[in-house]
Amino acid sequence: MDPLRHVKPSVRALAAYTLALREAPVKINQNENPWDLPEAVKRRVLERALARPWSRYPDFDPKELLEALARFAGWRADGILAGNGSNEAIEALLLVTVGPGTRVVIPEPTFTLYALMTTILGGEAIRVPMVLSSRGTSVVPGPEGSAGVADPSSSGRDEAPRGDEATPRGGFAYDVEALLESLEESQASLTIVCSPNNPTGTSLAPADVERLCRASDSLVVIDEAYHEFSGETVVPLLERHPNLVVLRTFSKAMALAGLRLGYLLASPELVREVNKARLPYNVNFFSQMAALAALEEREVLATSVRRLVAERERLLARLADLPGVRTYSSDANFFLLECLSADPKAVFASLLRRGVLVRDVTSYPMLGRCLRVSVGTEAENDAFLHALGTALTEAGMDLTTGRA
Amino acid sequence: MDPLRHVKPSVRALAAYTLALREAPVKINQNENPWDLPEAVKRRVLERALARPWSRYPDFDPKELLEALARFAGWRADGILAGNGSNEAIEALLLVTVGPGTRVVIPEPTFTLYALMTTILGGEAIRVPMVLSSRGTSVVPGPEGSAGVADPSSSGRDEAPRGDEATPRGGFAYDVEALLESLEESQASLTIVCSPNNPTGTSLAPADVERLCRASDSLVVIDEAYHEFSGETVVPLLERHPNLVVLRTFSKAMALAGLRLGYLLASPELVREVNKARLPYNVNFFSQMAALAALEEREVLATSVRRLVAERERLLARLADLPGVRTYSSDANFFLLECLSADPKAVFASLLRRGVLVRDVTSYPMLGRCLRVSVGTEAENDAFLHALGTALTEAGMDLTTGRA
Repeated sequence: MDPLRHVKPSVRALAAYTLALREAPVKINQNENPWDLPEAVKRRVLERALARPWSRYPDFDPKELLEALARFAGWRADGILAGNGSNEAIEALLLVTVGPGTRVVIPEPTFTLYALMTTILGGEAIRVPMVLSSRGTSVVPGPEGSAGVADPSSSGRDEAPRGDEATPRGGFAYDVEALLESLEESQASLTIVCSPNNPTGTSLAPADVERLCRASDSLVVIDEAYHEFSGETVVPLLERHPNLVVLRTFSKAMALAGLRLGYLLASPELVREVNKARLPYNVNFFSQMAALAALEEREVLATSVRRLVAERERLLARLADLPGVRTYSSDANFFLLECLSADPKAVFASLLRRGVLVRDVTSYPMLGRCLRVSVGTEAENDAFLHALGTALTEAGMDLTTGRA
Repeated sequence: MDPLRHVKPSVRALAAYTLALREAPVKINQNENPWDLPEAVKRRVLERALARPWSRYPDFDPKELLEALARFAGWRADGILAGNGSNEAIEALLLVTVGPGTRVVIPEPTFTLYALMTTILGGEAIRVPMVLSSRGTSVVPGPEGSAGVADPSSSGRDEAPRGDEATPRGGFAYDVEALLESLEESQASLTIVCSPNNPTGTSLAPADVERLCRASDSLVVIDEAYHEFSGETVVPLLERHPNLVVLRTFSKAMALAGLRLGYLLASPELVREVNKARLPYNVNFFSQMAALAALEEREVLATSVRRLVAERERLLARLADLPGVRTYSSDANFFLLECLSADPKAVFASLLRRGVLVRDVTSYPMLGRCLRVSVGTEAENDAFLHALGTALTEAGMDLTTGRA
């Protein structure tokens, strides 16, 4: 008598995931917007919330929100599905498309949820490694125009990885040819690409997204969680590619990670199918109110995005001079920091002791020596830079040679 | 080139579900608590929300909430999973247990989500019809002690349905023998029972829950969304039945339907597996704060539960005297109203024209002539009674004979 035998073997085989609760004065581990919405905006939402009975369900279809999202994103409201975070939107999409035998092409390293949910649903994740490019893939020039200028025609495939001796910025790139080959060979139902990518900061150029869309009728899912930081979006391609699906979130640039709101954009026909798996009343009234308020504060949010992009470039420029680490160019509000000699876990721990919490991504493929650093406020970034110098020394680095 | 071909056939075959947005002064269609939390409580939550940065994620594991739920429900915190409504909790459970070939025993008529999610996941819903009992199954005597006293030993199977000429209350009952037979024959992985049941108001006695738990190691899921109104719970059975799963919600008695919070209780080993399919950060910080506040307001909520139970019995007593309708006993904050001769859809529309919104459940099996009526405030219930008299006349009833 073992009730656990009713749990699917594919789920039993998964490691249980728990995240240790860590708090630190400088929290740059979750790619959040370090600037909260202005207090006046928050108070306006709270006033609305007070006037609304909490004991009543939210609307079955959050019509006002969907229409506001339609105006904001430039796509039709009946082609939008709102979710409890974009996680829930991708879950609903996979629920209606993935079962045993379904193949899903997923580049790696990337956000782990895509492959996890595919596996739980019995599908097969076909993983396509990214490649390293010395030219970087940034589509937003830094304030000093120093590095990472976009070259949308480059798939990155013909770029050799940099040698370990070089510390200036390189970047990860999507291997578009390999993605196309994998899609054709596997007859996959979906391809899921995070652009800019978590955790590498890599963008997939719109022209390459179109190539994927044209290659077959497979669904091409572009997770634009960080699109505000790259300034690029493939939403305009929805009109001519009925197999394109775009995901968006309010958890990053929109400064509402605490309230969990995301959305999916696709053809109305596809959204109609995905809606069948959407849980009724899935977006609570308060998150709806907060999202509507955030949509009205575009200027405030755009300013914070500009500051974060400028700070990202300042950090990367400063780190280029620091021996013993390498950074990767990024189109998002975070970047990868590779510890060339020091143990990255020791650096992580040392940073934490100094009140700076970054993300340990050493368990990701290709990132065995990397930490992911979110861009914070100017003061937080200075605190990080200061702590990092000490942390590298403490982790056994000789800063003059870059070797332990 | 048809991207929709990547949507599973089982999903394509489902009808798209949309709920027409209807508003009415007397809204008794969603089994909500008509009394909101006191304004002082809401203000306390809002103050806490103002002090918290909205741009930061909620905790990965909502530890404070899980511990408060543990104290509230009388079960261990590591055996609890919180969800964005109990819908999300049941979805996570089904995600880790149901795939093609999995059978799930589900009584009918009941809440439609169980079978819907089973179907989307490729599983098979084995439906077991309920039976009608003239004795009713209420476990909470009405204030006048007039009807529906519990008889936990009765499976209801040996009770004959009432004839159409009788208008006093009967009740639906679970057919426990049929459930046991179905479970054995189908070798189902799960049985899902809503108790008290939406939309019939039926309870499954704890002794019968134990029989299901002992019959095999299949998971027995008891959805206690309305347990506060029956005063009964099977949570104490969790200790000795590792295959028992209990669902709870804050959307009914706890008066937080607008904020979507539910939870699942089971053995820590099973919860660990279900957690693998739970989306990270699935419960937003505001709903967590509101739930914690509601847990501190037990006396206020208990008072509203007592008022609703008393009102339910008052309504049922009043309706017993009304020709042309029959009601069914209920352990929840709603009841079924059967239109014996008048067209129930005409009665629904007539009530709505008079500002009273009930739920049309005529599409449910066995309920082709039924409306579901939530218990509202005293004034709302009076308005309903008044409107119903007129609606029945308008729908063509001769009130003196009960025939059209």
